[in-house]
Amino acid sequence: MRRWNGWGDDQFSLELPAQGTDFLSQRIGAAEPLTDADLASVCQQVPDSHLPDHPLVATDAEIRVRHARGQSLPDWLAMRSGDFGRFPDGVACPTSPEDVRSLLAYADQHDIDVIPYGGGTSVAGHINPQAGKRPVLTLSLARMDRLLDLDPDSQIATFGAGTPGPLVESQLRAKGYTLGHFPQSFELSTIGGWVASRSSGQQSLRYGRIEQLFAGGSVETLQGTLSLPTLPASSAGPDIREMVLGSEGRLGIITEVKVRVTPLPAQESFHVVFFPSWEQARTAARSLVQNRTQLSMLRLSNATETETQLALAGHPTQIRMLESFLSFRGARDGKCMMTFGLTGTRPQCRTALKETRRICGEHEGVYTGTYLGGKWAEKRFTMPYLREALWQMGYAVDTLETATDWDNVDHLLATIENNLRGGLAELGERVHVFTHLSHFYPQGCSIYTTYVFRTDTDYAGTLARWHALKHSTSKLIVENRGTISHQHGVGKDHAPYLPIEKGALGMRAIQGLCHTFDPQQRLNPGTLLATDTDSVE
Amino acid sequence: MRRWNGWGDDQFSLELPAQGTDFLSQRIGAAEPLTDADLASVCQQVPDSHLPDHPLVATDAEIRVRHARGQSLPDWLAMRSGDFGRFPDGVACPTSPEDVRSLLAYADQHDIDVIPYGGGTSVAGHINPQAGKRPVLTLSLARMDRLLDLDPDSQIATFGAGTPGPLVESQLRAKGYTLGHFPQSFELSTIGGWVASRSSGQQSLRYGRIEQLFAGGSVETLQGTLSLPTLPASSAGPDIREMVLGSEGRLGIITEVKVRVTPLPAQESFHVVFFPSWEQARTAARSLVQNRTQLSMLRLSNATETETQLALAGHPTQIRMLESFLSFRGARDGKCMMTFGLTGTRPQCRTALKETRRICGEHEGVYTGTYLGGKWAEKRFTMPYLREALWQMGYAVDTLETATDWDNVDHLLATIENNLRGGLAELGERVHVFTHLSHFYPQGCSIYTTYVFRTDTDYAGTLARWHALKHSTSKLIVENRGTISHQHGVGKDHAPYLPIEKGALGMRAIQGLCHTFDPQQRLNPGTLLATDTDSVE
Repeated sequence: MRRWNGWGDDQFSLELPAQGTDFLSQRIGAAEPLTDADLASVCQQVPDSHLPDHPLVATDAEIRVRHARGQSLPDWLAMRSGDFGRFPDGVACPTSPEDVRSLLAYADQHDIDVIPYGGGTSVAGHINPQAGKRPVLTLSLARMDRLLDLDPDSQIATFGAGTPGPLVESQLRAKGYTLGHFPQSFELSTIGGWVASRSSGQQSLRYGRIEQLFAGGSVETLQGTLSLPTLPASSAGPDIREMVLGSEGRLGIITEVKVRVTPLPAQESFHVVFFPSWEQARTAARSLVQNRTQLSMLRLSNATETETQLALAGHPTQIRMLESFLSFRGARDGKCMMTFGLTGTRPQCRTALKETRRICGEHEGVYTGTYLGGKWAEKRFTMPYLREALWQMGYAVDTLETATDWDNVDHLLATIENNLRGGLAELGERVHVFTHLSHFYPQGCSIYTTYVFRTDTDYAGTLARWHALKHSTSKLIVENRGTISHQHGVGKDHAPYLPIEKGALGMRAIQGLCHTFDPQQRLNPGTLLATDTDSVE
Repeated sequence: MRRWNGWGDDQFSLELPAQGTDFLSQRIGAAEPLTDADLASVCQQVPDSHLPDHPLVATDAEIRVRHARGQSLPDWLAMRSGDFGRFPDGVACPTSPEDVRSLLAYADQHDIDVIPYGGGTSVAGHINPQAGKRPVLTLSLARMDRLLDLDPDSQIATFGAGTPGPLVESQLRAKGYTLGHFPQSFELSTIGGWVASRSSGQQSLRYGRIEQLFAGGSVETLQGTLSLPTLPASSAGPDIREMVLGSEGRLGIITEVKVRVTPLPAQESFHVVFFPSWEQARTAARSLVQNRTQLSMLRLSNATETETQLALAGHPTQIRMLESFLSFRGARDGKCMMTFGLTGTRPQCRTALKETRRICGEHEGVYTGTYLGGKWAEKRFTMPYLREALWQMGYAVDTLETATDWDNVDHLLATIENNLRGGLAELGERVHVFTHLSHFYPQGCSIYTTYVFRTDTDYAGTLARWHALKHSTSKLIVENRGTISHQHGVGKDHAPYLPIEKGALGMRAIQGLCHTFDPQQRLNPGTLLATDTDSVE
């Protein structure tokens, strides 16, 4: 069953190998875990619902607990401490667009706020009810999880918006297709959530971001149904699809999603190259993408991430052998690991492999074949489980991500890492920080930074540590030409920083758009656009 | 000098070969040309300007005549007859964003409407002043035509919005880069106009549409300056860039455009393949794009377009030899010509050529090498001059274009062609109609139809013929899952059909957006959104 207070399936857990524990305590000190609250006691805190009866609305405590929070670190601390703040007043699981329309009419009639809920995997506070007077209905799309149509000529598939990653892929694979959208949250996140939050998958180099995959569909709004016809391209004015993408529930409830699918590829493989230095690795990665080499994924770990991954991998003997080989070939301390994917026809993959090896070779990259790449592919969706293992040892882990142009990548990466690394110095605490680049464009790339710190002796102190790190770094990101999010969206956590990125007129455009569809701010208030005048001081 | 009443440079003209004339008179009858008005007499009709003085505003008759109309067929008929309708009251040619701000303040203060003018190449009535009470200022960006900055790391170039195609490419080429955006209007159209109207270039398969090339820039609005920062990608809410793309001057005046550029390719070549039938040709083209073969352009002419092009090419002996060869290889009557382009590194081009020949071979395509492809590349921007040659012979020519999903391509193409072909039957007039597909996506493609008919004995009758064809076909397009425009934009001519495509709520979103930036509808009124309730009856 799904964990009520953390990531994923509660039958599955990752163990940190002994070397990993040693590595972390050397870096930031040994830690003591905090005590977790239990589900029964949290359920007892849930207050009476303020919702009038509706046949689709459940108001029992457990369902309200299970839909109150996402997967941000503050969400995690709320679930672990049992200090949830507000719960939704009820949860509805509609099975059709008609159900959704009926629920919106009910909300409008009874002055209820509505929060759309996909997989509950937000790491930016998208689905948390905020304090306020109106009752809150959380509308889960979980039961709208079917492949509704597949057009093999136009390669368009229609899904219920609540279809989670594995059901998207399994239903398509049965017919010989793939969507190719693999965010790390793939196991739980949904196709509607991907659209609402402008998600990006690990193989975006081949398949594109969700913006390129989303072809149209249906959105139920308080003003009626917004139908988005499928068109391969159009110059007929501003694109309404692009207004729905990233709307985070503020315009309406996405009920049907039409996506561009691809026949299953003839070939797919993942390969690893090590570089002696960051400078060489980053230059090679930029050359690859600017050369338009047909790769399907590319990921480049900086030296600390490379070191951390090798330490946490277990298998110390094999890792030692690998390191001897790399050392012999010139990649020693400071080495950086690049993983790349090839997907397509045989000739496409052959040409791309040749070009990639040539370009990497020009920057002293040491090609190690497909063994480590295969391991990456095997474990690509299990990383979020590591948070549980670290938590049990007394470590909190979170990530920050952005994207910027190539001329600014090194500067912004250093700014983020330095700020996080020294961010708890006043408390005498060290922070372990490492980074990878994982989405590449000719213009620039994403920067994805992980930071690990010890929990405080209580939850409030732990949250304060997180807030200090998150706030100061987020501010630096938007002040230094980074986007507040490349792939996680805005939610409530990033909303205060959005005006710096979009500017006053850009914000007015988004506010105007939300006002057109939802003048009473009934849909997911506080998400995307902060309700109060929360400024970044 | 630029032609005041037609396309392009008046020192350049295309002659139709004798075979071409015969071909057309066999198809739709011999024709008599109408008499053209002269510039001096048109200038005499220009009324006094209602604009108050401004140092940047010129109000002489000729400049107002030269900025009154675009290149649609109604524009052409207006310019040829001298019956212009309304002229702008003045024309300003600012040289900086400050100038543009000053002109917008002047317009706001004196209750003036403002029409932004790039290359004046609209074929949908974007820049025609409409009837109304307010004086009209046409704001030409012609003097903002410089490359302002080039960042070789991020491959971003910044241009003044009025830079026309040839100056975009020559300024970039001097530094080893290309934008790769080549619409047929390339000689005259501008980078700001491409953004404002969501343009697409002939090599969009490699370089993308303008949506993919436009990275950010500046828009001067009546509410202040809208700055669009460059980011390689972002999930931070709806994308403001996408609201500016296709805004057709309704939000503000685009002054600076930042675009994603590419180093000049190592190789480029264009090749031609003939197929025995449309069915085979269309299937091969779809397979190529769905296979993600790295082509830079693809164009597929249907049988009538292939026949027309061969007839109009001149060189009857060579064409006869080509046809004998094709006939021997199985491509006879009904044959269809495909042109494809390869651009990139040598290995990329080699792999793509092999895959393309294999896929075309599977559908009985006869590969003829690069001779005809080279001819296409040579003449790629001269086709609009043919309108002049046909006009002098008494033929009017126009085009209609759309895009739709693959499952609908044949149906929509036939619907468009049949409607045009029989559209003047009541008058006893035949229409010569032919089509190509020229922008390809895994989901579908563009459909670009040319139609030629005889002018009536007067201008009013000729305009009526055009209107009958254009209106009925446009209506059929949007009623049959086509977009009202794949690459020409909405303007005033397509505005009545937009609500069918976007739906009531989609229209409200666009109206709301325009209202946020321009509550008094001072900027390019009547374009994109029809002012009156012009419905499609």
